[in-house]
Amino acid sequence: MKEYLVSRQRMVDDALQQFLPQASVKPKTIHKAMRYSVFAGGKRLRPILCLAAGECCGGEPSAALPLACAVECIHTYSLIHDDLPCMDDDDLRRGMPTSHKVFGEAIAVLAGDALLTFAFELAAEVPAWPRYSLGDIIHELAVASGSRNLIAGQVLDLESEGKRVSLPVLRFIHESKTAALLCAAIRLGGMSANAAPAQLNSLSAFGTALGLAFQVIDDILDVTQSSETLGKSAGKDLVSEKATYPSVLGLEASRRVAKKLTEDSHRALMPLGKKAGILHSLADYLLDREY
Amino acid sequence: MKEYLVSRQRMVDDALQQFLPQASVKPKTIHKAMRYSVFAGGKRLRPILCLAAGECCGGEPSAALPLACAVECIHTYSLIHDDLPCMDDDDLRRGMPTSHKVFGEAIAVLAGDALLTFAFELAAEVPAWPRYSLGDIIHELAVASGSRNLIAGQVLDLESEGKRVSLPVLRFIHESKTAALLCAAIRLGGMSANAAPAQLNSLSAFGTALGLAFQVIDDILDVTQSSETLGKSAGKDLVSEKATYPSVLGLEASRRVAKKLTEDSHRALMPLGKKAGILHSLADYLLDREY
Repeated sequence: MKEYLVSRQRMVDDALQQFLPQASVKPKTIHKAMRYSVFAGGKRLRPILCLAAGECCGGEPSAALPLACAVECIHTYSLIHDDLPCMDDDDLRRGMPTSHKVFGEAIAVLAGDALLTFAFELAAEVPAWPRYSLGDIIHELAVASGSRNLIAGQVLDLESEGKRVSLPVLRFIHESKTAALLCAAIRLGGMSANAAPAQLNSLSAFGTALGLAFQVIDDILDVTQSSETLGKSAGKDLVSEKATYPSVLGLEASRRVAKKLTEDSHRALMPLGKKAGILHSLADYLLDREY
Repeated sequence: MKEYLVSRQRMVDDALQQFLPQASVKPKTIHKAMRYSVFAGGKRLRPILCLAAGECCGGEPSAALPLACAVECIHTYSLIHDDLPCMDDDDLRRGMPTSHKVFGEAIAVLAGDALLTFAFELAAEVPAWPRYSLGDIIHELAVASGSRNLIAGQVLDLESEGKRVSLPVLRFIHESKTAALLCAAIRLGGMSANAAPAQLNSLSAFGTALGLAFQVIDDILDVTQSSETLGKSAGKDLVSEKATYPSVLGLEASRRVAKKLTEDSHRALMPLGKKAGILHSLADYLLDREY
C-alpha cells in the first residue's frame, strides 16, 4: 500500500509539474504563489482516489489524470482562501507558512482565484466519453466546488463559530466542506472510465461516507493530537469555537459515528466486487488513524 | 441604439435572474451576496457585446446567452475581489457600497469564488457547435480569466503601484486586466454562432482594440471627471499611484492613443461588412465619451 501511494503521489506530482504554468511565466509572482501552495506537501488524497476509482471501473490512470489534477487545484485554492486572515486566519499549513504569510494577502487571494480558474482549463482538455460528455464533467466539478457545496461548507463553518448547531446542520457542513469535493473526485474518476450508472452510484455512496468519516476523524484529531503530529495548529477548532462532532456529540459518540461511517464506506463498495480492492485499502489507510 | 441597449440589458438581467441560485437557497448569505453584486447596476457591456458578436455571425441571441451570463459572472467576481481591502480597497462601486462593506470580507471573498465557479457551471450547459467543442469554449473562458490574463492584469496593476512602468508593460497590464475578458466575450459570441475562422479573427482584433481603448479612456476619465459622474471614487488612480496612460504618457498623448485604438476597432470589423453594424454602434457608444 505504501509503495502504491508513493508511486501514485509521484504520478500526480509529475502531472501537476507539467500542467501548471512554470514559475518563470509572467507575472512570476502569481505562478510562484500557485506552485508554492500546490507543492507544499499535499498528500494528493483526492487525486489518488480519483485515479483509483477510474481503475475500479476498468479505466487507465492516464485518462483520469487531468481531472485528478483539476480537483487538487480546487482543493488547494480552497485551503489558500480558508487560511486568509478574514477567514480562519491560519499561519501554518502542513507545517509550512500559509500563502498570505509568504506572498501577502492580495497575492494569496489571486493565487486561489488562479488555481480555481486553472482547474477548469485543465478539465476542458479531457475528451468526451460515451456515457459522459465534457458538459457532465465540468458540471460535476463546478457544482461540487460551488455555492451549494464546497463554498456553502465554508460559509456555514464561519457562521456557526461560537454557536450551538444541531447535528443535521453539522452533518450538512461536513458534507459540503469535505465530502462533496472528495466524492466528486471519486465520481470523476469513474466517469473518466465510462462507469455504468450502477457503478457510479456505488462510487457516490462510497465517496460521501468516506468524506464524512474523514472530516469527523479530523475533528476528533484536532482535540486529541498535538500540533506537531498534525502539521497544523491543534486545538484550533476549540479556540475558534468551530462546530465539530466532538463539540456537538462529545468525543465518545463522535468515535462511534466515525466507526459507523467507515463501515458504510466499505459497504458501499460491495456491488463493485473484487475490483474495488484498492478503494477498500485507501479507505483503511485514510480512516485507520489513532482517533 | 438606446432602445437596443435597454432591451438587451433586460434580456441579460432576466437570464441572470433565472440562472443564478435564488437568494432563498441555503446558505442564504452567499446567494444574497452573489446576487447583490451581480444586480448592483452593471451595464452588461460584455454580455451585450457577446450577444451582438453572435448575431453578426448569423447566430440567435439565445444561443450565446449562457456564455454572455458566464462572462458577466466572471467580471463581477473580479470586481468584488479587486475592491477588497487587501487589493484596491474600494468602498464604492457604481455608487453602491462594495460587497465587503455590506457582507464583510470573508463573504466577499467567497461570493467572488462562488461567481467564478458558477460561470463554469453555466458555460457547461451550452451545446457543442460544429466548429467549436465545449472544450474550446471552456478553454477560452478559463484562459481569458486566468493567471496569464485577467489575474495577471490585477497582479501587475498592484505591483506597479508607485513605480514608473514602461509603455509596453502598461499596455500588457491593460490588455490583461480589461481587453482579454472583453475580447473573450466577443469571441465566445462568435463561437456560439459557429463563426468561420476568418470571422473569429476579425472579432478578436476588434475585441482587443475595443478593450484597450475602453481602459485607456477609463484612465483618462479617472483624472478628468468627478466621482459623482463616474459612480466610483475619481482620482483614485493618482492617489494609489497606479500605472495609467495619463501618468505614463500625459493626458494629450493618451487621448491620441484612445482615438487611434477606437479607429483600429472599427477597422477590424471591415471584413465582416454590413453585418457588423451593431458592433460599430456599440463601439461608438462605449468609446464616444467626453474624455
